[in-house]
Amino acid sequence: MNGAESLIGTLTKAGVTVCFMNPGTSEIHFVAALDRAPAMRGVPCLFEGVASGAADGCARMTGKPACTLLHLGPGLTNALANLHNACRARVPLINIVGDHATFHRHFETPLASDIATLARPHSVWVRSSESSPQLGRDCAEAIAAARAAPGGIATLIVPADAAWGEGGLIADVPPIAVPQLPDEARIAEAAALIRSEGRVGLVLGAGLTLGRPLAIAGQIAAKAGAKLLAPFAFTRIERGADRPAVERIAYVTEQAIEQLSGYDALILLGAPPPVAFFGHPRKPTVLTSEKTRVFTLSAPDEDGAGALEVLAERVGAQHGRPVLQAFERPQIPGGDITPNGLAAVVAALLPENAIVVDESITSGRGMLAATASAPPHDWLVNTGGSIGVGMPLAVGAAVACPGRPVLCLEADGSGMYTLQALWTAARESLNIATVIFANRAYAILKGELAAASDNPGPRARDLLEIGRPDLDWVSLAKGMGVPASEAPTIDAFAAALRRSFAAHGPTLISVPL
Amino acid sequence: MNGAESLIGTLTKAGVTVCFMNPGTSEIHFVAALDRAPAMRGVPCLFEGVASGAADGCARMTGKPACTLLHLGPGLTNALANLHNACRARVPLINIVGDHATFHRHFETPLASDIATLARPHSVWVRSSESSPQLGRDCAEAIAAARAAPGGIATLIVPADAAWGEGGLIADVPPIAVPQLPDEARIAEAAALIRSEGRVGLVLGAGLTLGRPLAIAGQIAAKAGAKLLAPFAFTRIERGADRPAVERIAYVTEQAIEQLSGYDALILLGAPPPVAFFGHPRKPTVLTSEKTRVFTLSAPDEDGAGALEVLAERVGAQHGRPVLQAFERPQIPGGDITPNGLAAVVAALLPENAIVVDESITSGRGMLAATASAPPHDWLVNTGGSIGVGMPLAVGAAVACPGRPVLCLEADGSGMYTLQALWTAARESLNIATVIFANRAYAILKGELAAASDNPGPRARDLLEIGRPDLDWVSLAKGMGVPASEAPTIDAFAAALRRSFAAHGPTLISVPL
Repeated sequence: MNGAESLIGTLTKAGVTVCFMNPGTSEIHFVAALDRAPAMRGVPCLFEGVASGAADGCARMTGKPACTLLHLGPGLTNALANLHNACRARVPLINIVGDHATFHRHFETPLASDIATLARPHSVWVRSSESSPQLGRDCAEAIAAARAAPGGIATLIVPADAAWGEGGLIADVPPIAVPQLPDEARIAEAAALIRSEGRVGLVLGAGLTLGRPLAIAGQIAAKAGAKLLAPFAFTRIERGADRPAVERIAYVTEQAIEQLSGYDALILLGAPPPVAFFGHPRKPTVLTSEKTRVFTLSAPDEDGAGALEVLAERVGAQHGRPVLQAFERPQIPGGDITPNGLAAVVAALLPENAIVVDESITSGRGMLAATASAPPHDWLVNTGGSIGVGMPLAVGAAVACPGRPVLCLEADGSGMYTLQALWTAARESLNIATVIFANRAYAILKGELAAASDNPGPRARDLLEIGRPDLDWVSLAKGMGVPASEAPTIDAFAAALRRSFAAHGPTLISVPL
Repeated sequence: MNGAESLIGTLTKAGVTVCFMNPGTSEIHFVAALDRAPAMRGVPCLFEGVASGAADGCARMTGKPACTLLHLGPGLTNALANLHNACRARVPLINIVGDHATFHRHFETPLASDIATLARPHSVWVRSSESSPQLGRDCAEAIAAARAAPGGIATLIVPADAAWGEGGLIADVPPIAVPQLPDEARIAEAAALIRSEGRVGLVLGAGLTLGRPLAIAGQIAAKAGAKLLAPFAFTRIERGADRPAVERIAYVTEQAIEQLSGYDALILLGAPPPVAFFGHPRKPTVLTSEKTRVFTLSAPDEDGAGALEVLAERVGAQHGRPVLQAFERPQIPGGDITPNGLAAVVAALLPENAIVVDESITSGRGMLAATASAPPHDWLVNTGGSIGVGMPLAVGAAVACPGRPVLCLEADGSGMYTLQALWTAARESLNIATVIFANRAYAILKGELAAASDNPGPRARDLLEIGRPDLDWVSLAKGMGVPASEAPTIDAFAAALRRSFAAHGPTLISVPL
């Protein structure tokens, strides 16, 4: 067994069965080994940012790590922007980066680079596996590191000769560190806050806005009259009818301050204190006022789910009924395209059990509110502010959940960073309906420019327009094998979205704004 | 004057007058300042790898730094793959990366990241400018660092409050370190090698395959019966009729070994010893045999141009005539598409003074030989092995040289990494004729797979096919506003290429292979 075979064997034995890959020469033995490893699915990507974003999306939906396969330093660097997002999403991810053969590394060659240094800022674990017999064990350690709470990126660097050399050994994953409960003092304090008269919000971090933790948080909220909140940059929320409502903290500073102004206490579980996305010359960074107590019950690497269980008991909520969202569909409006009209169409047509990936930036801000009472579904957003994660996340979610429809709400500016994801969606026949909000501008920056400059000049304004020429997303999609149409009216959008949800494989709808 | 204004003022005063940019909120004051800085041209890019590759192309053609403008850590990481290539090209480049305001950096926010660590592996100089009055001086130091021989990437990190704050000061560039001549012993030894009876090659690094250094190298070569060589990954060669011929060292290990086998000595000027691109289980890494003396006359940071002048004197070549390429155009063949036929068409039609950017990987290997006697032109290739630099380099070259036609020879697999470059070409009406060699595969990897595995399986082979669905480059180009056509025959290719060279603005020709 060569090193590459032992690597794949170790991955699949541990349940890591999808590899989003853009290999090169130094990874060719990994590719060759796939024919002897039917349990591993290789998903080809034409750009590494698609691979890393898809691995993130896959992990968000399964809770298990997927892996990447990247080509040396440049392959890694192309993946880093979406690894930044994955890092903030706190998902487990095995990031496999090929390297030159150990005997080749000390020569001055074009592709030589310092892979470990480039990987370290986004990784919880980095190691170069220096020999074939070591590769399986190193991979097993990588998996344990990635899966330790709350989940992180483990980067395994694989020199080509470690992959091609004989003596490979499949290894078992060592015991994974069990996250600790917050100490008693903190639990008692949180319970006291909840029992108090004041208005309380529970801010839920990654992994707590779904499944059992969400249900328990809903019980606590119902008992205490508290609200469930999530950071603006949340990982995944299970929402819609028959689920407790989780309110997203707003992006716009003034809105967030208003939203949080009424709370006497915010209890953070694996979530950071609410601060503005960016610093600003005339706006506050901290979004809460002095009258709001911001209390951290659990850090991200602690057992937030367990903390919710204990807290529910303490406040006597463990047998209570959470307040659940009602089921309600809006009417489909007609007429011209408006943000509210688009949101109403999505709310009216969203299939049960859909996965929504939302990177619509300015254009889709009404979507969450409109779909609060739609059939149960999942909602994923950009967690790290590195735009260009939407379509890759959709690929990963669709690979993870082949039976579920995926709706990807994408801004035209953001979509251009990783449009190669459309090809992978076509290649793998993934059920993804992509909606492009084509406002032909970095609209969010136009707002920032107006705020930064009393009288922005024509050159500055022009640099934030991404028209002239307009991007023609119908052609771009066609170029990558994805059937696409333009929806210039609400009726056309509704008809196209219906067709997309009924279709097998990916589709794209471009909505001119 | 705010910090952003002093930054742009310092750049333009030093002759840095083009900025390839993909700004975000933290760079908005730089954008706003452009309306008060008419000497700075802002070129918008939809993906940061386009910006960094274009800055490289611009610097290769002007010898002066261009600058980038990137949005925090993720913007930087998206640019890194082509910064890797720029680093290997040894071009000067001012890499400007916005950061959070200094007072905002210590909060846990989605976009916080360790920009300096991510920038360091590819930069000769990294600094975060912590206040507005400091920004101009830091920028001036960055320019000096980037321009010190042989040229490198200086990364200037600009916190948003340093950009928006008042007190900015335009600074002058401090003295730039002058590169040293190699010591006398090395020059004497090189002269002795050249005067010897043996067969000698001069391997010329970045900056020596053009202009006066190339002319002098040609004189030396003519006098000594020596050959001029360039590394496979060269930065820029001035070539064609009336210029000394420079032979590229082959990529394929066996070919390179054969090519270099007859030399008694290789004299390296700013070029690394010839080694294989990748290590291989059964092939040598070092491309020269023991009978060939490999002698380094000048390191990249030494004065290679000066060394050539001194050497020419020592061997009495300074008044000699170099052997120059004759002018010759081939006939345009007809019939089906073949690599030789495509190369003949390019050789027959290449306009005088054209700039050729060649990232055609396997499909274009005959291009260099076929165009050796074409009218004088420049040839740029991928210097770092990070594929996806071709179309961005073409953008940068076209911005640098508005009067010159640019021909971009691009492989379909490589082109997909940075296809967003087409939009910038359209936006800026750049005279770039892009030819896509659509073999619908990572063909170079299919060869590697065959070499790695005696009997590659269907899954491995399938992962190296980038068809199913085929990429439709005519639609992709149309989607970004670039007129495009498919050329299924040699005649059609010749007709389309003629139209492209006559057109104003970018065009694309897709050639199915």
